[in-house]
Amino acid sequence: GVLGSGDFARSLAVRLVRSGFRVVVGSRNPKRKASLFPAAAEVTFQAEAAKKADVIFVAIFREHYSTLCDLADVLVGKILVDVSNNTEINHHKESNAEYLASLFPACTVVKAFNVVSAWTLQSGAKDGNKQVLICSNNQEAKRTIAEIAQVMGFTPVDMGCMSSACEIENIPLRLLPAWKIPTFLALGLFLCFFTYNLIRQVIHPYIREQKNKLYKIPIEVVNTTLPCVSYVMLSLVYLPGVLAACSQLYYGTKYRRFPDWLDQWLQHRKQIGLLSFFCAALHAVYSLCLPMRRSHRYLLIETAVKQAMEKKMTVWVEEEVWRMEIYISVGIIALGLLSLLAITSLPSIANSLNWREFSFIQ
Amino acid sequence: GVLGSGDFARSLAVRLVRSGFRVVVGSRNPKRKASLFPAAAEVTFQAEAAKKADVIFVAIFREHYSTLCDLADVLVGKILVDVSNNTEINHHKESNAEYLASLFPACTVVKAFNVVSAWTLQSGAKDGNKQVLICSNNQEAKRTIAEIAQVMGFTPVDMGCMSSACEIENIPLRLLPAWKIPTFLALGLFLCFFTYNLIRQVIHPYIREQKNKLYKIPIEVVNTTLPCVSYVMLSLVYLPGVLAACSQLYYGTKYRRFPDWLDQWLQHRKQIGLLSFFCAALHAVYSLCLPMRRSHRYLLIETAVKQAMEKKMTVWVEEEVWRMEIYISVGIIALGLLSLLAITSLPSIANSLNWREFSFIQ
Amino acid sequence: GVLGSGDFARSLAVRLVRSGFRVVVGSRNPKRKASLFPAAAEVTFQAEAAKKADVIFVAIFREHYSTLCDLADVLVGKILVDVSNNTEINHHKESNAEYLASLFPACTVVKAFNVVSAWTLQSGAKDGNKQVLICSNNQEAKRTIAEIAQVMGFTPVDMGCMSSACEIENIPLRLLPAWKIPTFLALGLFLCFFTYNLIRQVIHPYIREQKNKLYKIPIEVVNTTLPCVSYVMLSLVYLPGVLAACSQLYYGTKYRRFPDWLDQWLQHRKQIGLLSFFCAALHAVYSLCLPMRRSHRYLLIETAVKQAMEKKMTVWVEEEVWRMEIYISVGIIALGLLSLLAITSLPSIANSLNWREFSFIQ
Repeated sequence: GVLGSGDFARSLAVRLVRSGFRVVVGSRNPKRKASLFPAAAEVTFQAEAAKKADVIFVAIFREHYSTLCDLADVLVGKILVDVSNNTEINHHKESNAEYLASLFPACTVVKAFNVVSAWTLQSGAKDGNKQVLICSNNQEAKRTIAEIAQVMGFTPVDMGCMSSACEIENIPLRLLPAWKIPTFLALGLFLCFFTYNLIRQVIHPYIREQKNKLYKIPIEVVNTTLPCVSYVMLSLVYLPGVLAACSQLYYGTKYRRFPDWLDQWLQHRKQIGLLSFFCAALHAVYSLCLPMRRSHRYLLIETAVKQAMEKKMTVWVEEEVWRMEIYISVGIIALGLLSLLAITSLPSIANSLNWREFSFIQ
Repeated sequence: GVLGSGDFARSLAVRLVRSGFRVVVGSRNPKRKASLFPAAAEVTFQAEAAKKADVIFVAIFREHYSTLCDLADVLVGKILVDVSNNTEINHHKESNAEYLASLFPACTVVKAFNVVSAWTLQSGAKDGNKQVLICSNNQEAKRTIAEIAQVMGFTPVDMGCMSSACEIENIPLRLLPAWKIPTFLALGLFLCFFTYNLIRQVIHPYIREQKNKLYKIPIEVVNTTLPCVSYVMLSLVYLPGVLAACSQLYYGTKYRRFPDWLDQWLQHRKQIGLLSFFCAALHAVYSLCLPMRRSHRYLLIETAVKQAMEKKMTVWVEEEVWRMEIYISVGIIALGLLSLLAITSLPSIANSLNWREFSFIQ
Repeated sequence: GVLGSGDFARSLAVRLVRSGFRVVVGSRNPKRKASLFPAAAEVTFQAEAAKKADVIFVAIFREHYSTLCDLADVLVGKILVDVSNNTEINHHKESNAEYLASLFPACTVVKAFNVVSAWTLQSGAKDGNKQVLICSNNQEAKRTIAEIAQVMGFTPVDMGCMSSACEIENIPLRLLPAWKIPTFLALGLFLCFFTYNLIRQVIHPYIREQKNKLYKIPIEVVNTTLPCVSYVMLSLVYLPGVLAACSQLYYGTKYRRFPDWLDQWLQHRKQIGLLSFFCAALHAVYSLCLPMRRSHRYLLIETAVKQAMEKKMTVWVEEEVWRMEIYISVGIIALGLLSLLAITSLPSIANSLNWREFSFIQ
């Protein structure tokens, strides 16, 4: 049974019918809505649908849960599946599923299917995220819903008892939470180093020698800033591992929890590392663009003209040549190694490595 | 039971035996073929195999289905699994599975395993595509085959009733269908812009000033063409979304189907976007190669020599310097952002994002 | 039941409790260890735990298996799950699971869960490798364990009978075995071509003309070496397919096994191809860096000065210009095509292609 006639209710009914289930839809206005549902699904009044079905998907907004209280008698002993989502993280004190359970104490409430979009339901789970996170205090009911999800082509994931409902409801609302701190860290570092390089390469020569080097800001100053950010970020990837090892040695046990800040830091290493790689790659592209610039061309021509007028034939400085050759070749090798690290962080490749291979590459 | 003794029949028998099933193979020449099958599988005549087995995999060509008609009596009430593929898309009016069902009305026919290659069957489903698409008009039979597929290590996907058989049979024959239109679109745009740039940069100066600029064709003309193609393609990614929104606003409902051309366009956005990124990346590489060319070197030396002979010391044009610096730095940032979009379109990364994160990145 | 109180035993108990199983842990010192296990798990003496449980996970080291012999009586008829790993590949003559089975002939031994890390068990199988490889001589017991793995959120993979245990125990110990030969091959080729190019570009001019060109070693010599390696590796990708086809034509059958060396070669093609792409990409980056070098700048200025002093205005050599333009544009196109090949070798993309599409791209 499906209670509700919104987008999600429709997609759910479509998918259930396709997977071979008998579906009855409960709507407040069955006649007007019947055309929206597949022909094989019976569309009727809410009370009747609740009577006929054993498993009932509650596809209505939390605000309207209380309107179902009239059906409390017919719902006794049935499994209610809460598929709802919130619009804000931790909007209400208790999760929607727990609220539903408190309204219908005689029913078994299961939280499921909220991480699946109406779109995925309709188009089938052929690609895209196929996981259905399920939680409930009743093992039997949880297993029933897991089996339904399996037949519908999804991968049920047991998330334990009802207290996880809140966490499950927050999942579709999260916005790259693991990237927030590393991104702000990278931006902060960029600003610091950019200011330092700006003063050193543009403002200082202007004040001391009245030379206008403003043209260096968009490329040269940015290009000297990026590798600094990249280095600091890369060191921040490997530092917490050392701190964790020290803490374990100091306390003589590995069962003691790390302090919260260290734990958070350890969990953000992958994102910090990828941002470090991103900065390094940008630095490489910026450096490669240097000879394309007009300023590079003009400086070259000016030097050549000056040399020609002074009849100086040799400009070769062996030390400078070697410094640049070594600098570039070390840079390329470092970028190549960082690329390998970045590629192994792709989920589909990381999953095909065992722990020993992963730590070898690191 | 497996009827047939070709590659697929052998691999199927190997896999079934390994998964712990009792297998009987029906061949027209059991003695000669027995050596090809694993020892645990019993190889016998077709009639006998059909008698012994409850689920029978029909691993023979559609053309030979009619040869099985002699076995009609022993097959009554059994489940026939059609694993066949065609050599051309929509080769026959009705799908192979429907044809088999019409020949044996007393059997239950299930379409399955045709998207799995003999190679995947033999090597096990440890990696590679593990999905087995199943369709049948009989829910019971479908569930039986789904369970067999599961035990064999595959992921059964329910595709509904027999009318989907045609679609399932076409899957192994498709050749990147989603890429056809976007690729031709990109090639067409490339040709148009290439012609325009060729006329503007090579033919026009030749006619007007008799200057031979043919050397510009392989790199410079291509390099000015690529960003045009990339821009137009990128705008074609975001345009249909706007049109769809307008259409929804105009008709006041989101349940009205879009016209076919808009629907197709919406579904090809990912491919168009990736081709746009590909052109942008090529443009970046071409641009970076510009200073490597001999022509660049010669023009530079010529300018320097001319300046030296005219005793002109200053060549610096502040406006040109700034134009180039800003052009390059905006280009790098745009490429960096496009790279992020391209990376999030990798299946394994897209699957780990929820809808909110995906639309945020877009 | 879980016997043992190490890391793995704890993580296993945590996961089993979360998945809704009743867990009893057998430890030699239950009082001291109880605090490490979740409250819902009963921690008691080994004998008692063995008595209470039907399925017993043996989470202790192989060396201590014999200490369980006292429990032989209570273990009769129960399923023992061997989750152990070795520290070296093929350390012992027989696998741990087979050794356990020989100690307890009255029990049914199943090998499982050894490829899953304690970390994955604790954090849940939401991402990371979710496969649990299972083998046993008893189909019933294997199915029981497969169901437990499924409920715990893992994907059970049937690996056949007990003789596979050795192979399964070696999996967590392997270290990129498929990359060893291709990597040494690439290094060998690099050394050969590097020596040749070093002699040709540095040593020969020094001996013949006393010119010091040592500065060319880090970039120019490496840069002329990389494409040679890349070419040879690429040809080694396509050569074995030709040899295999010839062998099939010669013997007139495709059921004859290839000789071992050819089989190995065929299986390493993907790694050889990716290394070829890696060399080609490095070559591209090195080439793009050429105009950034001081040496390039100095040579340019020297030429300009020389020309200016000799009052020569024209330096343009049409042939050299064309050679470079064509060389660069062919290089870019080749790199673009190789990139497509490399991208389609990503597991998540390769899995979404059917055989026809894959061979089309190749």
